[in-house]
Amino acid sequence: MRDVLIPRSGIHLRLVLAFSLLWASFDGSVAADGPHIATASHIDAGRVQANLEHLAGIGSDPAGGITRLGLSQAELDAHKYAVDLMKDAGLSVRIDAAGNVFGRREGSAKLPVILFGSHLDSVPHGGAYDGPLGTIGAIEVIRALNAAHVKTRHPLEVVVWTNEEGPHFGVSAFGSSVAAGSVGPEVLDRKDEQGETVADWLRRYGQDPGQLASARIAPGSLAAIVELHIEQGPNLEEAKIPIGVVQGIVGLRRWKCVATGTANHAGTTPMTRRHDALATAARELLAVRDSVRAEDGRQVGTVGYLKAEPGAPNVIAGRVEFPYELRDLDAAKIERMYAATQKRFADIDREEGTTTVCTEVNHIEPALGDPRIQATIREAARTAGLATMDLPSGAVHDAGEISRLAPMGMIFVPSHAGISHAPQEFTSPGDIANGVEVLYRTIVLLDKKLGAKPTA
Amino acid sequence: MRDVLIPRSGIHLRLVLAFSLLWASFDGSVAADGPHIATASHIDAGRVQANLEHLAGIGSDPAGGITRLGLSQAELDAHKYAVDLMKDAGLSVRIDAAGNVFGRREGSAKLPVILFGSHLDSVPHGGAYDGPLGTIGAIEVIRALNAAHVKTRHPLEVVVWTNEEGPHFGVSAFGSSVAAGSVGPEVLDRKDEQGETVADWLRRYGQDPGQLASARIAPGSLAAIVELHIEQGPNLEEAKIPIGVVQGIVGLRRWKCVATGTANHAGTTPMTRRHDALATAARELLAVRDSVRAEDGRQVGTVGYLKAEPGAPNVIAGRVEFPYELRDLDAAKIERMYAATQKRFADIDREEGTTTVCTEVNHIEPALGDPRIQATIREAARTAGLATMDLPSGAVHDAGEISRLAPMGMIFVPSHAGISHAPQEFTSPGDIANGVEVLYRTIVLLDKKLGAKPTA
Repeated sequence: MRDVLIPRSGIHLRLVLAFSLLWASFDGSVAADGPHIATASHIDAGRVQANLEHLAGIGSDPAGGITRLGLSQAELDAHKYAVDLMKDAGLSVRIDAAGNVFGRREGSAKLPVILFGSHLDSVPHGGAYDGPLGTIGAIEVIRALNAAHVKTRHPLEVVVWTNEEGPHFGVSAFGSSVAAGSVGPEVLDRKDEQGETVADWLRRYGQDPGQLASARIAPGSLAAIVELHIEQGPNLEEAKIPIGVVQGIVGLRRWKCVATGTANHAGTTPMTRRHDALATAARELLAVRDSVRAEDGRQVGTVGYLKAEPGAPNVIAGRVEFPYELRDLDAAKIERMYAATQKRFADIDREEGTTTVCTEVNHIEPALGDPRIQATIREAARTAGLATMDLPSGAVHDAGEISRLAPMGMIFVPSHAGISHAPQEFTSPGDIANGVEVLYRTIVLLDKKLGAKPTA
Repeated sequence: MRDVLIPRSGIHLRLVLAFSLLWASFDGSVAADGPHIATASHIDAGRVQANLEHLAGIGSDPAGGITRLGLSQAELDAHKYAVDLMKDAGLSVRIDAAGNVFGRREGSAKLPVILFGSHLDSVPHGGAYDGPLGTIGAIEVIRALNAAHVKTRHPLEVVVWTNEEGPHFGVSAFGSSVAAGSVGPEVLDRKDEQGETVADWLRRYGQDPGQLASARIAPGSLAAIVELHIEQGPNLEEAKIPIGVVQGIVGLRRWKCVATGTANHAGTTPMTRRHDALATAARELLAVRDSVRAEDGRQVGTVGYLKAEPGAPNVIAGRVEFPYELRDLDAAKIERMYAATQKRFADIDREEGTTTVCTEVNHIEPALGDPRIQATIREAARTAGLATMDLPSGAVHDAGEISRLAPMGMIFVPSHAGISHAPQEFTSPGDIANGVEVLYRTIVLLDKKLGAKPTA
């Protein structure tokens, strides 16, 4: 393997030049709960890398990384590339009214669909793996099934969800949320930075925005939803475990707070007479951290900015706006942390002579992974000789939305240094091959296990 | 007295309709160190109020308060109004290359000039008193001397300094700094929000920017510099003392700091693996406050904003830029506080795994008031039956710059609720009349006291 720098995007993609070395590299990462067997690979790791490299050129940003925003020309170009790959793989392609792309491979029985895939949009200056890995990996599973002449009982569908990241329209997991019925026509008039609406973009994707509700997936039509994704955290890499079995996608609650004090002259206002909204907000930021740290566990809490007004070096801030968010798999723990922060905020306001008011702006319930699918992913990894670790997903994913319709499972592979949403985002070719192989085996196993239950 | 609302500016100016009541109102504010005598007033308080009201209409801002930025058409209009008032008062007017306006009244002896005045520019959405009081008050002193047929031994000059506030060209006390020789032609190319340079504006003020250095005042040419100003703090009002004798203008040191951590995903990065630059900066803000509070005294320290990057609710901040400033009359105390903050910053960086680097961007030494002028102001107030309080100026003033050339004194009057640089800035007509009367008496006394020392 060697590093190939793609100058136009500044992204490193490691082209696998010696595929024969790939599986040898697993020796270091096969761990305690799986036998050290040299298992044959069903998938073509080099083809996956080549597809990922091609995608990295779509939306590559001169200022660094990849900017392939959801509902933009770059995402549309990436979708077209995926459609071509799907058709090459013999899938019959349809695009729903939310722009989601589905590639279908019929099954031998009348059963609900096993759906798997991910997204192709990125954050601004994002990386090459968040989304593309799960999308290309899913297409590769179909190609590998074709190559092995495997006929499944369930119909299989590869999906590319539209606009998962969603920073510019203010709605994340857009395509999957429409499919799950949790987002509707109320978003059609939202505008991006150029003033184009969601509706405008859906028309460019070849869809009729008035038919958005038709993209809703009927309950009972899915047997399972499975998503392969990079971890976006450091846990797998640090534990040297190649496969993560996602216990669930954490719940997320986010508040926007405004701390109000009194703006005044920084030179003439005595320290004892100040009602400094920024000092209040600084203490509240630390209170959020303390409240999150007060319990054991993987819960997280973050304040990403403090916006002070008037915001001059020589004026005491009179108003500070800041968001804070809390995430955990356990909704009750989030509620406990929220109550603790609010109690601390009240104490701080009393001490500082300020007022802090917080309004909830996001409330996503935890989405638990289906235990049978988790067991299937563990089994798939074991048969491939790969160790697994159970862990939550701290990030939101399309699979979380679809878990409201069908049993859900997610497979994680290591993210180098835990970095994501940045040009430095990197997962090694070996880890990618592991993940796609485990996805292949998971789909095959699920087809057997879930097949006992036919549709009505 | 009744309140008159001037709708175009939203500023309250209290028009004095019954001047005979004015001095009666002093009973409440005459205090311990001055005799309770009913002293006749030399100045015309109604004329001062009328002039201030006229000025409040120049640059009144539809969005609130007065926006009469230094080196703008509004300031130029205000200067023209001052020139008219000066000429009406019999002063011979000259304008220097920095746009500063001087109105001269000859003395009977060959002595250096007693200079007094202030500025007419404001901050955006500022008030009606910061600057205009000292300017109109100085012109009123001349008118009162004329009315009383007082001939001074020293030549007297009323000054209107250009661009004292200076937010848009990034140089405060512009006119007085040029006069003191601490600012030179290097500022001529600085641009305002419309792209106009300092040089462009000086041309509109009728000056040749190439001659800027000619505005420097020759050492020895001034006997004293005196400035009447609103306190801009709450001390006088809270102590119910009508006259402040300024001990000096505090030194000001300001740093720009950058705290660098690691930007990362707020959902996937465990609490124990974070290097959150905003948590570091929040702790550093509180460390600045703690370091300032650690000693008794009037010193102040402020962090006016924390600018986080990337600044999204779901991303741990990787970089935070923030200013901090420390002010005190004692430069050694500022240095001690600075050392204490830097030690705390290093501890915080070590604990958080971050790096904070601070660069000094302003360093203004304290400017001490001349003890003889302070004594003269106290005497002037005492003869007028007004109590005084010694206090530092926490704000920067033109007189501080000129104190590098000549003995300096400042007279403060109360600011309602300590509010300044805001539309709510207010000083009562009684307090204004007190201040102008004390300025009158101070100038008359200084003329006698300083007159013993002729120029070479």
